[in-house]
Amino acid sequence: MQPLHHIISTREYSREMLDEILDMAEKLEPIARGEKTTKIMDGKLLALLFFEPSTRTRMSFETAMLRLGGQIINMGSVEASSIAKGESLADTIRVVSRYADAVVLRHPREGAALMASEFSSSPIINGGDGAGHHPTQTLLDLYTIRRESRLDHLNIALAGDLKYGRTVHSLCYALSRYGAQINLVSPRELELPKRIVDDLKARDIKVHIAHSMEDVIEEVDVLYMTRIQKERFPDPAEFNRVSNSMRITEELIEGCKPNLKIMHPLPRVNEISPAVDKTEHAAYFKQAFYGVPVRMAILCKVLGVDL
Amino acid sequence: MQPLHHIISTREYSREMLDEILDMAEKLEPIARGEKTTKIMDGKLLALLFFEPSTRTRMSFETAMLRLGGQIINMGSVEASSIAKGESLADTIRVVSRYADAVVLRHPREGAALMASEFSSSPIINGGDGAGHHPTQTLLDLYTIRRESRLDHLNIALAGDLKYGRTVHSLCYALSRYGAQINLVSPRELELPKRIVDDLKARDIKVHIAHSMEDVIEEVDVLYMTRIQKERFPDPAEFNRVSNSMRITEELIEGCKPNLKIMHPLPRVNEISPAVDKTEHAAYFKQAFYGVPVRMAILCKVLGVDL
Amino acid sequence: MQPLHHIISTREYSREMLDEILDMAEKLEPIARGEKTTKIMDGKLLALLFFEPSTRTRMSFETAMLRLGGQIINMGSVEASSIAKGESLADTIRVVSRYADAVVLRHPREGAALMASEFSSSPIINGGDGAGHHPTQTLLDLYTIRRESRLDHLNIALAGDLKYGRTVHSLCYALSRYGAQINLVSPRELELPKRIVDDLKARDIKVHIAHSMEDVIEEVDVLYMTRIQKERFPDPAEFNRVSNSMRITEELIEGCKPNLKIMHPLPRVNEISPAVDKTEHAAYFKQAFYGVPVRMAILCKVLGVDL
Repeated sequence: MQPLHHIISTREYSREMLDEILDMAEKLEPIARGEKTTKIMDGKLLALLFFEPSTRTRMSFETAMLRLGGQIINMGSVEASSIAKGESLADTIRVVSRYADAVVLRHPREGAALMASEFSSSPIINGGDGAGHHPTQTLLDLYTIRRESRLDHLNIALAGDLKYGRTVHSLCYALSRYGAQINLVSPRELELPKRIVDDLKARDIKVHIAHSMEDVIEEVDVLYMTRIQKERFPDPAEFNRVSNSMRITEELIEGCKPNLKIMHPLPRVNEISPAVDKTEHAAYFKQAFYGVPVRMAILCKVLGVDL
Repeated sequence: MQPLHHIISTREYSREMLDEILDMAEKLEPIARGEKTTKIMDGKLLALLFFEPSTRTRMSFETAMLRLGGQIINMGSVEASSIAKGESLADTIRVVSRYADAVVLRHPREGAALMASEFSSSPIINGGDGAGHHPTQTLLDLYTIRRESRLDHLNIALAGDLKYGRTVHSLCYALSRYGAQINLVSPRELELPKRIVDDLKARDIKVHIAHSMEDVIEEVDVLYMTRIQKERFPDPAEFNRVSNSMRITEELIEGCKPNLKIMHPLPRVNEISPAVDKTEHAAYFKQAFYGVPVRMAILCKVLGVDL
Repeated sequence: MQPLHHIISTREYSREMLDEILDMAEKLEPIARGEKTTKIMDGKLLALLFFEPSTRTRMSFETAMLRLGGQIINMGSVEASSIAKGESLADTIRVVSRYADAVVLRHPREGAALMASEFSSSPIINGGDGAGHHPTQTLLDLYTIRRESRLDHLNIALAGDLKYGRTVHSLCYALSRYGAQINLVSPRELELPKRIVDDLKARDIKVHIAHSMEDVIEEVDVLYMTRIQKERFPDPAEFNRVSNSMRITEELIEGCKPNLKIMHPLPRVNEISPAVDKTEHAAYFKQAFYGVPVRMAILCKVLGVDL
């Protein structure tokens, strides 16, 4: 196995590379579930540098590393660190990357992970860089689709904020490696940027643009929901109208395929009615869990640990 | 040994169940002291979700889990997590309980731990839910009494804020399993709620209500002190009068039994004079330490680990 | 090996004691780099009590303890702990020192570590106490000089804020054990206190007081730079003039010795031009890393663990 030096974006990953990571994640699932234990990361140290709040990404990386037998050091919040004294990100990276064997970086600034990789003595894993990339989210989304539905001949709807949501942008490119049909459901104000639609079409992906959930709900295998943020709308009334029309309720999914799986990167606010949680369609909590085996696979790749 | 699925409250625990946990804690004390090492929790992961500040409860759970050979993931402060984005407690629990083998939850809202247990994929341990319960505190209080004094035929004074203090409420019920004589010493404004007094009497517990420490200090084996909060009193002068009258000083304990043990759940502010710290009567720092073996026992019960 | 009970200050350490710690650090370097693994701290627990923000000191202690096979408990920020409820430092220490095998304390108040050692059940390691001491910084500074330059017949310049910088004060005393020539370069307002200059001279150290970097740059083996804080100057224009004159640039080091090593305790703001980072003279990031093997050595001394 060839180690990946840094994990900045999955944009250029081939289908073979994606499959290799998903295969590793599947092998690691029993360890992620605590059904098997291992020490393959014994003596390895992972540093967490989160310049923004996070629960799922941070805690699932911690879970992944600890269940593999490794250890964690955590910068903690920006307020608890020397960053408050005016240290540059480059200097922080230079120091912390000398302590640990790999560094997970979350930062509000687009491009921060790529920049960090230039100053780092150990591999950087991008844990989300603002409007930029969040490669481990994309990989866990793919993994969830493979585990709960299917990656080949997939018919998927991406719904919600398709304009600003980095999660759906990256997922589109990854799905394009598998030839999916992609339905884009959003308010007109929040459509997927035209350059991404063009990129998908150039890759022979069938793209269907819709503005109502009802238009697509009966056909799709997977419905990937994302949050619409109030701040995107100058008029609160307009936000309310739009967010209500994009909500997933029991009524909406009445005519859906029996195997429909609903996904969401979480946290949700009210995009999905709690009544949906108890149905077989709800895959969003499993999706959050799948972050653990997928991040385990990423850690193994980055640290050059064979399974 | 039968694992306990969740630890929400000790209210309904039988004497046998209490004794079993205290016996386990006693066996685990050498490990808690670092005199012996073990790996019985190897491969196990404990999640800490503290929605309120805590030093003792959180750090003693960490100590307990790590000294047993397990590992920890910690949500950190609410500000550092996705909670700030408006995620519900139910969703946070659903996600985090899939990462870890057990979850310690501290939350300001009464009933939060019980509610959480309905959404959790792994056992919930209540680390204090506002005015509700704090079962591991009750167990460590019982353990301290057993180790430093005696549980049978105990004569105990509970002093301070008996109205709002959840610690003393839970301790009363637990002590009632052992037939203690309970002296209640508080300002009139902060007496133990009548329904609890009635419950105790219905369990054949001798209850003595007093308003002055001097009335009881010569008779008791254990004096359990709690903090009186300034916010309870509309008039600061009244607070000062009351809190001075409830203070434990060297003079107060002059005529006490030679084996009197003084307890306090900490943090203390000025309920106990520092001059008392050096006497053989001070048991409050040992009490804080006993949180470690008791929480070890709880973790073993909850995770189904045999000693 | 005789364990050191507490590590409060290196002020009184003999050359033999300093050498012993530096020798241990050198042996531990492969473990610090992750090239070798060990479990010599298996079953040991280190508590971190940081009452002030810190990145390097805290994370390098964590790295040191974890790479030695030990474990960590961390109080977290003051806001996340019971300190907010008004607990005294003495009580916090009494409790936490019963959980762990050793305690690292950082506190803004001078003398806090010494005071804490009086109430602690386990060894206290001073992680910086305000204007007081920061012994592990002094030891890693010495270690860096030994590894990157030389301790015997050293010609060193200490530059920047020599009046308030506790780092340079402690380093002066430590260097005096090795007979260095010390050049002091600062603005007139921030000269080294006269009592320290007198102490150094009494120890037969050659002291040269200068006010310009150009005066010393060609002669020295090591240039130790520290940050000048804006708050020290009533007049911002005066601060700007001074801090510009004390800056290390590529031009400044043009005529320097080929083996000149530049050190800085970090974080730097703009005392050192980024252009200097790429030169062979820059030792400040290595210096930050050397905190790991040096703190490993300290932990071994304090916990009585033989190599």
